Formats: sequence, structure tokens, C-alpha cells
Amino acid sequence: MRPKVPEPSLERLILYQRLLRRLKAQGVRVISSEEMGNLLGLKPSQIRKDLSFLGEMGKRGVGYGVEELLSRVEEFLLDSEVHRLAIVGVGNIGSALATYRGLQGRDHRLVALFDSDPAKVGRRYGDLEVLPVDRLEEEVSRLGVDVLILCTPAEAVEPLVARARSCGVRGILCFAPTDLVAPPGMAMQRVDVSSELRKLLFAMRELKGS
Amino acid sequence: MRPKVPEPSLERLILYQRLLRRLKAQGVRVISSEEMGNLLGLKPSQIRKDLSFLGEMGKRGVGYGVEELLSRVEEFLLDSEVHRLAIVGVGNIGSALATYRGLQGRDHRLVALFDSDPAKVGRRYGDLEVLPVDRLEEEVSRLGVDVLILCTPAEAVEPLVARARSCGVRGILCFAPTDLVAPPGMAMQRVDVSSELRKLLFAMRELKGS
Repeated sequence: MRPKVPEPSLERLILYQRLLRRLKAQGVRVISSEEMGNLLGLKPSQIRKDLSFLGEMGKRGVGYGVEELLSRVEEFLLDSEVHRLAIVGVGNIGSALATYRGLQGRDHRLVALFDSDPAKVGRRYGDLEVLPVDRLEEEVSRLGVDVLILCTPAEAVEPLVARARSCGVRGILCFAPTDLVAPPGMAMQRVDVSSELRKLLFAMRELKGS
Repeated sequence: MRPKVPEPSLERLILYQRLLRRLKAQGVRVISSEEMGNLLGLKPSQIRKDLSFLGEMGKRGVGYGVEELLSRVEEFLLDSEVHRLAIVGVGNIGSALATYRGLQGRDHRLVALFDSDPAKVGRRYGDLEVLPVDRLEEEVSRLGVDVLILCTPAEAVEPLVARARSCGVRGILCFAPTDLVAPPGMAMQRVDVSSELRKLLFAMRELKGS
């Protein structure tokens, strides 16, 4: 059984993947934790600790082979299972996501769109047609959806999470500004524009005060 | 000088604000850190520690007055300065944000939109018209923009951050998947859909394994 990875380390591993892809594209062959630290504004010791989750690697004083490290990080992050995603709510954000390439990946695919508004049902985004949310349970079961992406108003989240749970969804990516937490056995991650903006304004104030 | 607030505490304070608004709307008058902990899946001691950043408050064994606590949290989070925001890149995500109400708040206002694509220049979203990105420095200075919201491809981020810095922008909210960090004196916050999805899939795997 592999060790539990704390969320901040996981977040940085995703950042390392991005950096390593860029370095590989630029033809960089070897990189040290010091150089990575400089590029990312992180301590080298932090980077070495995060990378230790991938197991033994790198030679002391030599640095990491960019290509090898990238494939180790990718292998670690990628899932062996292919997840099937559905968006609920094709308003502003939901419809932008419906054609977002990041939702079609090696281990995940967007397979359905839902909305409660009859005026939006039947609209097409790429290969997908918006279905009425009444058919959520039926379609989720039929298509094997295990992740719901909620782009609804905040008050719709709680009942949708309960419905999702009843038909086997195990993960929620929530764009609605809610304080709800995932019920036991489900995972939930928020993408919260207002909250990130609030953190940014706060950080600007602290920069100014320092 | 007030104490520096760690980012996880700040993130939770934003969550408390949301919870307290909901409780107030439901007519709840008093709440204890234990009850808040149950509702948010957090330890009461954690909540008390976060709230200690607001100064002395609450009576031991009595709990917090919802209305008082909410106004203390809001006062703490709100800025006395009014920030002026501009979006660069009105593709999928940028155009969704252009009409997003969360960008019009008590201490921040969206005041400009930019794009490099001549076909998009001149389009209107609400009261704003998309301007050519060539005019970024000029318009940012004229309008007093201090926050740029980058919804461009990843490779456009680095030059835009340099340009933004040269005309007095102090904060970047970045939707592009980049590994770039903010230069000294600037703050940067990412809103990263792929990264949050990756964290969700990872958490689902850990739930399954446990």
C-alpha cells in the first residue's frame, strides 16, 4: 500500500509535471532540485521530499534526468482506471467547460451534459447533447459516470450530491460557491473563482503591508 | 501590524463566511465551534485557531453570535481599497467570467476586457467592450487596473506578467495552466481546472484504497 500523499505535495507534484514537460520540450536533459526550486519559488528540500513519494530516484549531486522524472511523475498521477465525467449545469461556466480540452484526458472523458432548463436541453457542445437533469440517475448508471462536475447555483448542490451518491458517483468537482462537504465515501474538490480572487486580494494587501 | 494569516486558514475563513451567511439566512442566532466543525468536516480546535486571527471573541461554553461573527469575518476579509480588475483573453473561460457576478463585489470591479484576436475585439459583454491587447499598458494605467485575470494559453502568461508589472498591476489571477510563479512584489493565484480534477481523481483512488 502506498503512503498517503498530503494535498499540498500532490498540488506541487502536478506543478512539477508541468515544469518537466516544459523543460523536456526545451530540450533540457538534467535538472537538480535546486534549479527546480529556483524556477518554482520553492525550497529544494521541499521538492526532494515531495519526489520521495515516487520512490528511490536521482543520484546525489547529479540531479534528475528530466525525461525519467517526468515519466515517474506522470505514472504516479495518472489513474489506471478511466473515469467518466458529466457536467450538470451548462450556464456560463458549464458551457465553457463542455468544450474544454482538459476534460478529455488519458484517464478521464467527459461523456454527458445535464441541465434543468428545458431551453438548454438538446443544445449540442462538440459530440454531446444536453440532457434533462431528471434523467441524471438513469444516464449516470447507463454511461458509468463516476465524477459529476457541478456548475449549478449553490442551492442545487446538496440535493444533486445526494442523487449522485445514490447512483454510484464517487467524485464531485464543484464550481458552485458552497460550504458543503463531501458525504462519507465520496471525494469533493472545489474550483472556486471568488475564493481564489479573495485570496489574491488578501495576498496583495500583505505584500503592501510588508 | 496584524499577524500573517497562513493560506489554509484564509481559505477556511472564506468557508466560514459562506457558512455563516447561510446560517444567518436560516435564522440561526448562535453557533459553537463544535457545530461549525460538524457542518464543515473540520476540528473545532482548528476553527477556534483560525478565528483567533480576528481577535478576542466568543464566550467559552456559549458559542459565537452568528451575526457578530459574520460581520467580523467579512470585515477581516474585505479590503478597504477597491480593486479594479481586467480580463485578458475572452475565449471560453474568459467570456464566461466577463459576465460572472462574482467579479463585481464591494471591494472589486471588473473594468476592462482584452484580447489579441481582432475577431474578438469590439465584442460586448455587459457594459464592457473587448479592447486589443496592444493597448494593455495604456488602458491599465488609465483605468487604474491593479489585478489582471489571465485566460490566455499558457505560453502567453510570462510576457503578459512582465507587461502587467511594468504598468503597475500587483496581482494576477491565472486560469492558464502554467508553472510560472509571481515575480517579486506581485501576488499570483491560480484557478486551475485540470489540477483540481487531478486532485479529485487522486482522492477518489485513495478513498477506494482505504
